[in-house]
Amino acid sequence: MVVELVAVGTEILLGNIVNTNAAYLSEKCAGLGLSCYYQSVVGDNEARLLETIKNAVGRSDIVILSGGLGPTEDDLTKETAAKVLGKELFLDENIKAQIQEYFAKRGTKPTDNNWKQAMIPEGAIAVENNNGTAPGIIMEQNGKHIILLPGPPNELIPMFEKSIMPYLKALQPGVIYSKTVKVCGIGESKAETMVQDMIDAQTNPTIATYAKTGEVYLRVTAAADTEKEAKLLIKPVVKQLKDRFGNAVYTTEEEVTLEQAVVELLKKHNLTVATAESCTGGMVAARLVNVPGVSESLMVGYITYADKAKHKLLGVKKSLLKKKGAVSAEVAKEMAKGAAAFSKADVTIATTGIAGPDGGSEKKPVGLVYIACNVKGKVKVKECHFSGNRMKIRESTVANALILMRECILEYEEELMKARKAKD
Amino acid sequence: MVVELVAVGTEILLGNIVNTNAAYLSEKCAGLGLSCYYQSVVGDNEARLLETIKNAVGRSDIVILSGGLGPTEDDLTKETAAKVLGKELFLDENIKAQIQEYFAKRGTKPTDNNWKQAMIPEGAIAVENNNGTAPGIIMEQNGKHIILLPGPPNELIPMFEKSIMPYLKALQPGVIYSKTVKVCGIGESKAETMVQDMIDAQTNPTIATYAKTGEVYLRVTAAADTEKEAKLLIKPVVKQLKDRFGNAVYTTEEEVTLEQAVVELLKKHNLTVATAESCTGGMVAARLVNVPGVSESLMVGYITYADKAKHKLLGVKKSLLKKKGAVSAEVAKEMAKGAAAFSKADVTIATTGIAGPDGGSEKKPVGLVYIACNVKGKVKVKECHFSGNRMKIRESTVANALILMRECILEYEEELMKARKAKD
Repeated sequence: MVVELVAVGTEILLGNIVNTNAAYLSEKCAGLGLSCYYQSVVGDNEARLLETIKNAVGRSDIVILSGGLGPTEDDLTKETAAKVLGKELFLDENIKAQIQEYFAKRGTKPTDNNWKQAMIPEGAIAVENNNGTAPGIIMEQNGKHIILLPGPPNELIPMFEKSIMPYLKALQPGVIYSKTVKVCGIGESKAETMVQDMIDAQTNPTIATYAKTGEVYLRVTAAADTEKEAKLLIKPVVKQLKDRFGNAVYTTEEEVTLEQAVVELLKKHNLTVATAESCTGGMVAARLVNVPGVSESLMVGYITYADKAKHKLLGVKKSLLKKKGAVSAEVAKEMAKGAAAFSKADVTIATTGIAGPDGGSEKKPVGLVYIACNVKGKVKVKECHFSGNRMKIRESTVANALILMRECILEYEEELMKARKAKD
Repeated sequence: MVVELVAVGTEILLGNIVNTNAAYLSEKCAGLGLSCYYQSVVGDNEARLLETIKNAVGRSDIVILSGGLGPTEDDLTKETAAKVLGKELFLDENIKAQIQEYFAKRGTKPTDNNWKQAMIPEGAIAVENNNGTAPGIIMEQNGKHIILLPGPPNELIPMFEKSIMPYLKALQPGVIYSKTVKVCGIGESKAETMVQDMIDAQTNPTIATYAKTGEVYLRVTAAADTEKEAKLLIKPVVKQLKDRFGNAVYTTEEEVTLEQAVVELLKKHNLTVATAESCTGGMVAARLVNVPGVSESLMVGYITYADKAKHKLLGVKKSLLKKKGAVSAEVAKEMAKGAAAFSKADVTIATTGIAGPDGGSEKKPVGLVYIACNVKGKVKVKECHFSGNRMKIRESTVANALILMRECILEYEEELMKARKAKD
């Protein structure tokens, strides 16, 4: 089936906000096995909205609209979508009660125009909104489906996951099931080459690759009559991918991020961690702090952007800084060792590099970065050459710092196992 | 004039990447006084691309397409756009030479399919690409303009600023000129209320508000025959806005960010800075490190996510941590004071809060954050209640930390001036 996405909102047309809903919905729909050929954005203007919805309904099976469900007169999505299907609006007492309850919980009262949000097209399904007052709407007519969602992502995402995904799943003959093999430390084109034969030969399941900074996601999607059958189809393909990519696979769980995988590895071995950051200025620690409950592992972070701080906080010798420069393998190594000495953390990670736009030279160009990781006294240094602007170089550094940490902890794990075996 | 944006790329339809080009181009076009009624995304499929371009050319004066200019057979944007206008493609020797030079600089050789990128529709203007091999293309026919840009933002943005903006400016009768008054520490709805009378009465210039985390941008746009006249029209409105918002205005320069304004204030008064972060885990320092050349000011950053680190690195008393809890005004204050004591920095900023999803209680719910700023011994603590997920709460904390720093340094500035006056 073909799905089409329409975002409604002048703020997107003005460039005030980025249409992240489209990326979210597209990825979810692709995961459900739906094809998406068009996305569009249109403002809160009846004539243009009418044209856009008619066009979309004409060429796609499912049209998902987001935004324009607010209580003001400007909000026209529901009224216009109902017009396209020739449906009238009626007051839905259930939704009215939900809105009343929503306001009562917050100790406030709805305004008169809030009741506009309780008006539902005839025959439509109203979808409860746990995070706002605009209900979602599902309409169906002659095999065409129009789904209306509130615009704010914190309302749209939970509603989509709770109510819309099951609806879309039920529309399809059989079941679509996906699993993502997440790989780090291998570039997208190399990863693609490594699975090209599988992609060329694929029918069901299919494999799609998605590039993230420092990571590649390999999504395996199968269609079958039941979820059990789909899972059976996927299993050997996931196994094959895991065999090919080996240690580069950090998870096959949808929600697990790279930083989470690293934190789980730390916890598994009861390792504490400290960061020592120059060019990333706190971004490595911030990625680790993305993981709730990291306080058990993260002892401390040192941000030593200035040379003085590298000397004072991490004990990097002034003579070394002078001789080799702050951006050098030697200084990165000393930063990691210094962080370990001062924090007593088991694992330390250090970054130093030239993020630009200035400060580059022929010998040390913008994008040159050294990352050092120390695990219980064993230090590994990586020289990297990144491209892009200041932010892109720093983001690449952070991703590669996490990847190096993972690599070093895995080596430590291997040695532990060897030692255990030798003991037996 | 009406502009329409079309992004071409299957990776956007799959949700692999977010269409940030659309937000960038929309904002720039709005600044040029162009109206944008539609944005769309379509894949690398000739029939659908043809339909989309025809539709866009039919209803808009200017169609800007991005993506699909690569060297492979999949890349169809140029060929399809030329087809819509009935133009044939010819080899452009200039562009061929530029591509040759691009590869020579990198010590590599173009592949055969790179010459596809030197093929230009008859009568079209080829626009040099300083960051890649795909030239931009401008075509014009019967008052309709089609502009083709490469998809990667690091190629699209410089090309748009250097070559496309002047072209679009020249299309318009007269000149459109904008200036942005950037305000911090005032919510969007309050800011809107404060200028509602000006917005209601406006004809030329117009005022539009854009909300960012912790900030509001007020963009003043004037249309006139010459840039000089437009600037004259804008000047009193900018002055009026500055009068109304007073100290909340941190810049009227397009490129200046909040962190940059803070770093400039630090430099102005020769103040050094250190950060002490708990819930933000390095994000405040990372924002400061966004500013090139911050190493003169940023002495050090302490990431003290764990209570132990707050005690060891910042000297926060264990008894205080136990009595008041890590998330308290008192601990925030001690963190800022401790950072000052250990780093000797003039300004220190501390954050501690509950970012969730767990760890909240009735007394201290998720979203409760304390921020403390110390300027030469004078400490100010701010209690905040943020909503949203873990990342949103942390981003709001970072923005408010910068805002508090700015506020405290401005107070210090005022006192300095008072002291100087008293001396005179």
